[in-house]
Amino acid sequence: MLENEMLNMGMAAKRASYRLAGISTDVKNKALQAMAKALEEREEMILAANQVDMDEGRAKGLNNALLDRLLLTPERIKEMADGLRELVGLPDPVGEVTGMWTRPNGLRIGRMRVPLGVVGMIYEARPNVTVDAAGLCLKSGNAVILRGGSEALNSNIALANVISTAAVGAGIPEGAIQLVQRTDREAVNIMMRMNDYIDVLIPRGGAGLIRAVIDNATVPVLQTGVGNCHVYVEEDADLEMAVRIVVNAKTQRPGVCNAMETLLVHEEIAPQFLPVVSSALREKGVELRGCERTREILPDCLPATEEDWKNEYLALILAVKVVKDIEDAIEHINTYGTGHSEAIVTGSYEKACRFVQGVDAAAVLVNASTRFTDGYQFGFGAEIGISTQKLHARGPMGLQELTTTKFIIFGNGQVRS
Amino acid sequence: MLENEMLNMGMAAKRASYRLAGISTDVKNKALQAMAKALEEREEMILAANQVDMDEGRAKGLNNALLDRLLLTPERIKEMADGLRELVGLPDPVGEVTGMWTRPNGLRIGRMRVPLGVVGMIYEARPNVTVDAAGLCLKSGNAVILRGGSEALNSNIALANVISTAAVGAGIPEGAIQLVQRTDREAVNIMMRMNDYIDVLIPRGGAGLIRAVIDNATVPVLQTGVGNCHVYVEEDADLEMAVRIVVNAKTQRPGVCNAMETLLVHEEIAPQFLPVVSSALREKGVELRGCERTREILPDCLPATEEDWKNEYLALILAVKVVKDIEDAIEHINTYGTGHSEAIVTGSYEKACRFVQGVDAAAVLVNASTRFTDGYQFGFGAEIGISTQKLHARGPMGLQELTTTKFIIFGNGQVRS
Repeated sequence: MLENEMLNMGMAAKRASYRLAGISTDVKNKALQAMAKALEEREEMILAANQVDMDEGRAKGLNNALLDRLLLTPERIKEMADGLRELVGLPDPVGEVTGMWTRPNGLRIGRMRVPLGVVGMIYEARPNVTVDAAGLCLKSGNAVILRGGSEALNSNIALANVISTAAVGAGIPEGAIQLVQRTDREAVNIMMRMNDYIDVLIPRGGAGLIRAVIDNATVPVLQTGVGNCHVYVEEDADLEMAVRIVVNAKTQRPGVCNAMETLLVHEEIAPQFLPVVSSALREKGVELRGCERTREILPDCLPATEEDWKNEYLALILAVKVVKDIEDAIEHINTYGTGHSEAIVTGSYEKACRFVQGVDAAAVLVNASTRFTDGYQFGFGAEIGISTQKLHARGPMGLQELTTTKFIIFGNGQVRS
Repeated sequence: MLENEMLNMGMAAKRASYRLAGISTDVKNKALQAMAKALEEREEMILAANQVDMDEGRAKGLNNALLDRLLLTPERIKEMADGLRELVGLPDPVGEVTGMWTRPNGLRIGRMRVPLGVVGMIYEARPNVTVDAAGLCLKSGNAVILRGGSEALNSNIALANVISTAAVGAGIPEGAIQLVQRTDREAVNIMMRMNDYIDVLIPRGGAGLIRAVIDNATVPVLQTGVGNCHVYVEEDADLEMAVRIVVNAKTQRPGVCNAMETLLVHEEIAPQFLPVVSSALREKGVELRGCERTREILPDCLPATEEDWKNEYLALILAVKVVKDIEDAIEHINTYGTGHSEAIVTGSYEKACRFVQGVDAAAVLVNASTRFTDGYQFGFGAEIGISTQKLHARGPMGLQELTTTKFIIFGNGQVRS
């Protein structure tokens, strides 16, 4: 029975999570080292499993972008191993007491950081998520149930096998790293409702996957990733800086969530700025889609529709809108944005303050590219995703975001009157 | 159309929330004072509306406990007003920057506390929640959509009217405090899926209400309240202290979520401890339901079934179990507990450490009554509920838990290479 199978995985993960919560940083670090080493030693077997997925993918007619995501190479296996080794150097968040105070009755009350328990990862094609997520969960003391995409099943089975065997060999409890080997939809539906055994779900993938998890899960969800990001150029911006930031935000890596999708320009500066920036963007192969006022200035620009304001292109396409003022820009962003990363280019102290205060997003940037919103760039090290929701974590989520707190209260016989 | 009506409320709340996020502490405090004053001035009207609810409640045959929860009196109105005034004195969490650092490329990155946006409260009979929740949301810069129980509809309409009018008069945007006046189930179903307009749902009430919200909501939920709490008495406990804590945790206010529901006793101490504690408990009118080993020591104790380990009695009933050792106690708690408040009574440093580490709950107490888990006792001031989930907030939730953070990033033209 599928239901029993899933519940058994959940129970095993829960059991493992209680033991894992008390395991020392040393043991966890040794396990990460062992996992990294095992990946490199079992390279041949992993590549063979990946070859099966690649062959099936080609036979199914997957496009080249998907096939590239699916592909493992010796270099990519080494990158995964290095990712695990990097976690060794990051501080262990578990057990940190973030504050302690004494009440008038003598009770000492503190807040201690503890693992979440069991994390459920639901993700798509990239097999490296299997290793990255397992490593982050292990270091933060969480058990993990991994459920990858069906296209990567053979690769994921091989990877999960190698790392979980290595982890158990290094003293990590069985059940701490498990992979759902069923790719039917029903398995994931059960998983999304296993509130007794899974503490949080993290979906990673396209907007469709994330929406499906939000709509169907009763387990709390950490929403990640969709980014309809804007850069707003104020009338008093340094135009050379504005061009540099806009070109970087759009073209440095267009397929990721912190790339810019819409450019907003103050009407006073638009006649001067738009011709310059459009030629710089077109040099990089960017297609522009503008509002009416944009098209008055750039007559050869395609027209933008309502859909363009909503779209996360993830491609070399940019929507452009001329706005009346900063309030108009903030309203556009709060209406169409996905709460990921929003930037202003301005020379004005007052405008910078207003933008930072008024824009509702995980990251608000002044005079910097939206591309900086990520765990490494922020100095956190590895991340499990970028949260675009407001509960628990907002923005890049690293080890600390994979923990919760508990109150610890020390008394000497106090009762309440 | 009900759907349009609800969406309009949502849009109005969202709009208000953007303005509210930028309103100064002074204006918010003046609004709280005005709301308190208005409640006292409109006492007569509020009591008249409450009388309608009470009459209907009696006609419907509501039991005395429910009628008592529903009842408003001049004293209770004064308590609500005083609750609002108390919020004036609490620090405003909005705008606090909890850390800022500089990256090697010169970017300055900080984390700023900001309101969640729009809070949806779904609650049952007590009309005071209308005022308490509105005050907490206002002080933390959030708009709120209130949806109370149908029994309290007239009282809630009167209260919401008085406080929202007073708030708007003091400079708070319209739409910041709204009450759903529809009591049909469909209204709440729509509300639970308004992800574009509501940032978080907080259900307050019985286990059934909370479960229904978790099962049906796509908006993120902060789960509150259900408490199946334990006290574990170790073999080396000070027995006099253990009796005091057990009696307090069970009887000081049995109808609330932080009251004890099951007593666990180490087998070595059970023959000595159980007779003493049972006579102290019985003096307070507590009915005991014991495991087999308990009943060997207390032959007149009723037998406990599996159900008793799961039950949140909220009454003068106590389940009692003799356990082999601390590991047995921790396993029982992690299996049957609801992650609220769990206490150990022990003289051993090692046992105290093990219990604090091993028990998975919002609050773990050593040598103190479970009854201490609440916002006032912890020194936070007013609370909007006690979270028993792990995401975002765990334990008593005050003003700070009604906020999220955003990253603020200050550059001077940085782009990513």
